[in-house]
Amino acid sequence: MNPQNIFISKKFEFSASHRYWRDDWSEEKNDQIFGKCTSPYGHGHNYELHVTVSGKVDPVTGMIINLTDLKKHVNVVLEKFDHKFLNLDTPYFKSDIPTTENIARVLFDLIDEELKDKGDFRLSKIRLYERSDLYVDVWQEEM
Amino acid sequence: MNPQNIFISKKFEFSASHRYWRDDWSEEKNDQIFGKCTSPYGHGHNYELHVTVSGKVDPVTGMIINLTDLKKHVNVVLEKFDHKFLNLDTPYFKSDIPTTENIARVLFDLIDEELKDKGDFRLSKIRLYERSDLYVDVWQEEM
Amino acid sequence: MNPQNIFISKKFEFSASHRYWRDDWSEEKNDQIFGKCTSPYGHGHNYELHVTVSGKVDPVTGMIINLTDLKKHVNVVLEKFDHKFLNLDTPYFKSDIPTTENIARVLFDLIDEELKDKGDFRLSKIRLYERSDLYVDVWQEEM
Amino acid sequence: MNPQNIFISKKFEFSASHRYWRDDWSEEKNDQIFGKCTSPYGHGHNYELHVTVSGKVDPVTGMIINLTDLKKHVNVVLEKFDHKFLNLDTPYFKSDIPTTENIARVLFDLIDEELKDKGDFRLSKIRLYERSDLYVDVWQEEM
Amino acid sequence: MNPQNIFISKKFEFSASHRYWRDDWSEEKNDQIFGKCTSPYGHGHNYELHVTVSGKVDPVTGMIINLTDLKKHVNVVLEKFDHKFLNLDTPYFKSDIPTTENIARVLFDLIDEELKDKGDFRLSKIRLYERSDLYVDVWQEEM
Amino acid sequence: MNPQNIFISKKFEFSASHRYWRDDWSEEKNDQIFGKCTSPYGHGHNYELHVTVSGKVDPVTGMIINLTDLKKHVNVVLEKFDHKFLNLDTPYFKSDIPTTENIARVLFDLIDEELKDKGDFRLSKIRLYERSDLYVDVWQEEM
Repeated sequence: MNPQNIFISKKFEFSASHRYWRDDWSEEKNDQIFGKCTSPYGHGHNYELHVTVSGKVDPVTGMIINLTDLKKHVNVVLEKFDHKFLNLDTPYFKSDIPTTENIARVLFDLIDEELKDKGDFRLSKIRLYERSDLYVDVWQEEM
Repeated sequence: MNPQNIFISKKFEFSASHRYWRDDWSEEKNDQIFGKCTSPYGHGHNYELHVTVSGKVDPVTGMIINLTDLKKHVNVVLEKFDHKFLNLDTPYFKSDIPTTENIARVLFDLIDEELKDKGDFRLSKIRLYERSDLYVDVWQEEM
Repeated sequence: MNPQNIFISKKFEFSASHRYWRDDWSEEKNDQIFGKCTSPYGHGHNYELHVTVSGKVDPVTGMIINLTDLKKHVNVVLEKFDHKFLNLDTPYFKSDIPTTENIARVLFDLIDEELKDKGDFRLSKIRLYERSDLYVDVWQEEM
Repeated sequence: MNPQNIFISKKFEFSASHRYWRDDWSEEKNDQIFGKCTSPYGHGHNYELHVTVSGKVDPVTGMIINLTDLKKHVNVVLEKFDHKFLNLDTPYFKSDIPTTENIARVLFDLIDEELKDKGDFRLSKIRLYERSDLYVDVWQEEM
Repeated sequence: MNPQNIFISKKFEFSASHRYWRDDWSEEKNDQIFGKCTSPYGHGHNYELHVTVSGKVDPVTGMIINLTDLKKHVNVVLEKFDHKFLNLDTPYFKSDIPTTENIARVLFDLIDEELKDKGDFRLSKIRLYERSDLYVDVWQEEM
Repeated sequence: MNPQNIFISKKFEFSASHRYWRDDWSEEKNDQIFGKCTSPYGHGHNYELHVTVSGKVDPVTGMIINLTDLKKHVNVVLEKFDHKFLNLDTPYFKSDIPTTENIARVLFDLIDEELKDKGDFRLSKIRLYERSDLYVDVWQEEM
């Protein structure tokens, strides 16, 4: 078996709220494009995040990455998002709307950066669920 | 079979955000009791609500309650909660903290009121999930 | 601990189709009350059934009921429903509409009868899911 | 991040019934190959469909595709399947058996056609669950 | 609303292994009654435990019990079970078979004892899942 | 549609226990790397295995592989793992630690071997869940 064909995934959770709104649009246009998500004080979600890492299985430990380490690295990122209002409490959505697509892109970059040079593995993919029936996948470019 | 021993339940969902905070407490005491939930702009959840109705099964339709009607009545209530910041966008949590317990109590009373005199059935129970691992049940007093 | 306060539940599954239709009603009235469920050749569901049994825990085996036996008894009943068109392939819905309420009532009676005199336990409750967001509970009258 | 590496998925549901049967085979051969699925009036399922779309995230809206649009386009297709007996109520399974594989292939082609020229995105994949333990994936050929 | 009609539930998880075997039975009898569960070194499960507590909702905090406290008390008990071989690593199954029924009874008594005199609430019920399709409920005797 | 772009997946389950321990390490080092998993008699899990097969859809049966056959072939492999203590009851983990990564690698090779020359299909992928929040994917090298 080729080692790059094996992946380990761990699920994380965080709760946050967000608002969809563009100041350069009229209220009518905001409502038309963003629907109920324009509500002024924001509304919230339980986000579920699957983080997928690839690498060689260490013949001594039998592990791609020690899960204690994976949790530590990912939680450095998630602490910035958990129990926050994403538009106001984080610096990432000042100009970008905090849609599931944009939150997933930001999370991918932050986790990818956090895992760099930490061992013989790399971030392959994240999946972010806003609800159980809506999710976004972001894959590492060259797999 | 005794007709009062049969119950029909329908699941609903809504997204909302909330904050746990008491002005009459110091920030230290708020943090100690409410932890991460004190975050100033609030944080959010996908709430899942199970509404359970009891009654006689109508021999003609085979139904306790027509589900189209049940959805209509419950959605009158949920529209006040969906995509809202519960502390500021609703009148129910001005003095009460919007914990899962208190949200469930308010929802039970509102849905119970909404279903009254609508037919030969009554609200028996609601279950409110804040997350898949945390939920509150409220039962009708005299079952 | 009082032995009647302990319950064991096992989940079963079956696939069936059904149609909601009353010949003594006009097509308009059928559509108004039963909506899409009037479709002439029927439509189907994966039903999920939870069977709950109460009794004394046998001090020798540590069991209320041997699960091999429970499966055998419940499957005698479910074989009449699995992969069937409930209106035409079973005798139970000639005059009663095969709503979730009525299917649950029929299943409760058949399983209750099947479990009778098979041991020191009794059927307490069944829960029948038509979909993950719609289910009916039937409880034994005198618990 | 390369935009083609981001995907958004939405879950849909429909209920349908089907029968596995070939007229050019004996009843014995049908039973041997298709088992309980040969039952004459058909049996049913709650199908769950995940539709995955790829594209560039619009910098203004933060979206690959507006979910209101995605729902509208997919529902045009699903209305032909929901609450139907697939063998008799649709034109797609006159000669092909409505197995999960064939239903998935038909759904992929219909949704792919429906999404064409509607925007700067494309159908990447569908996943069709017949039950929670059985599903078929169909991927766009050149990803 | 009567305060005893409100309940809060929290889900916990632990992993353990067990063996069903009676020394006073022949291997044949053990196999006949316990099937694959007689395997000598034991086999394992991810157990899921739902702990349900009832009480008055505190008008100041909006809580029946602070979840940080509930977790602390229940984890005192679960530390004795998590990552253990229940027959050998715990004192509870020397003579009793570690069936789901018996594990649930032991857990109920230990958690009930642990929660006593800790506040204005009491243990109402636990539900223990051995697998997603098999679970045992234990209720407090006088509710 | 290109036939190699269609995949069918079936979920299987088995229960097993395992221990993480290296004799050539001190107890301190074992504890530091493997945490609670070093517990001497092992602990257990309900493993969930998704087996994904690709191939041409047979125009006569509408199937990539008859599920009765798929179940038969996979169960030949799973009988070696179900209700076993993986370290002692199987030959696969004498020198390799039975981590989720290593169990998945062994299962992939055994199922791949078992499906060879059985028909016009091949194993594409397996996914092995140790818990609902931890899983490993193994893909066939040249897809």
